[in-house]
Amino acid sequence: MCLIMEVGFGGGGGGGENNDVLVPPTNFSMAEEGIYRSGLPQPDNFGFLRTLNLRSIVYLCPEPYPEENLKFLAANNIRLFQYGIEGKTGSIPSSSIMEALKILIDVRNHPVLIHCKRGKHRTGCLVGCLRKFQNWCLTAVFEEYQRFAGVKSRSTDLAFIEKFDSVCLRQCLYSLIYHYQGYGSNKRRLLYREENLQKSRVTSR
Amino acid sequence: MCLIMEVGFGGGGGGGENNDVLVPPTNFSMAEEGIYRSGLPQPDNFGFLRTLNLRSIVYLCPEPYPEENLKFLAANNIRLFQYGIEGKTGSIPSSSIMEALKILIDVRNHPVLIHCKRGKHRTGCLVGCLRKFQNWCLTAVFEEYQRFAGVKSRSTDLAFIEKFDSVCLRQCLYSLIYHYQGYGSNKRRLLYREENLQKSRVTSR
Repeated sequence: MCLIMEVGFGGGGGGGENNDVLVPPTNFSMAEEGIYRSGLPQPDNFGFLRTLNLRSIVYLCPEPYPEENLKFLAANNIRLFQYGIEGKTGSIPSSSIMEALKILIDVRNHPVLIHCKRGKHRTGCLVGCLRKFQNWCLTAVFEEYQRFAGVKSRSTDLAFIEKFDSVCLRQCLYSLIYHYQGYGSNKRRLLYREENLQKSRVTSR
Repeated sequence: MCLIMEVGFGGGGGGGENNDVLVPPTNFSMAEEGIYRSGLPQPDNFGFLRTLNLRSIVYLCPEPYPEENLKFLAANNIRLFQYGIEGKTGSIPSSSIMEALKILIDVRNHPVLIHCKRGKHRTGCLVGCLRKFQNWCLTAVFEEYQRFAGVKSRSTDLAFIEKFDSVCLRQCLYSLIYHYQGYGSNKRRLLYREENLQKSRVTSR
């Protein structure tokens, strides 16, 4: 969502080629650079989603992904990662959250959109765990969860977030870094481009 | 807030140099790449704010900026833009919002944090106008406003956002683009770096 390009760069003098009103999905927000969250996108949200240039979607429901959404993903070269978490049981499997977090922290998957059905509980839990990983205090994590859940806030979700073991996630992260960058003093942020460069170097040998 | 760097890159094997819990300001959120929003930051939020590498702050209250916050800005080389909007009158001056928007859309000021006192009304109006500028439908603009204002949502604010003339803002934007890039077919996103490059070219002649 580049602000200045949004107004219609590349065209003639006065813009005008992008005057359609954009309809973000319900409960849409940017959680982090390259990480968005929302409820289930409907077809009238596809125009908006196109402006995000998504590379992947993390879908947190057990139901099959809707046919129209699958077509949108195929047409826009977006990869789907599905972690089926039941919406009503109240017990979130931490293994699914952990796997989803690994997708989120890997910038090669960015920009990524996390969504469940309403963008409140499952998405809220995943973003909450991401915040713990980022060392946010629990007060701020809960404030953010409640901003999206509103009156539907669940204490079982908050307890899940509180108990979630971010130390374990750090270990996963280090293994990810090791896999792509090796240990040592020259560790850098993992960039998709860099990995591609490395790949092409290997190929051209 | 680079995710992977957050865990403690550049240090030894196991991280550990950044284990302090981070305390984001109340009502903190990322509105857009390079644009954050919140309530008034308190001293215990400064550690968190440092992770954002802010270049500027847009402050929307008429009260003088708190002494401690001024010191934080000076120590971190952050520029303050103040647009004094009264908190309780209910009538938002659109000229102040327009000037603040010009700061927001100019990426040379990014990363920028917008804040008033609680991050609900004045900040909500400014972000709402930004969304109109981005062509968001009014339903989504209002949903976002209400997510932050909660039970304190004001219909006067919503009416202000609805009436706000984004066409005028587009004209301001074009004048900004013209100032830095000129008209023509090679218009690109305005980048701080590019402007600096141009400056140094001029200097070295």
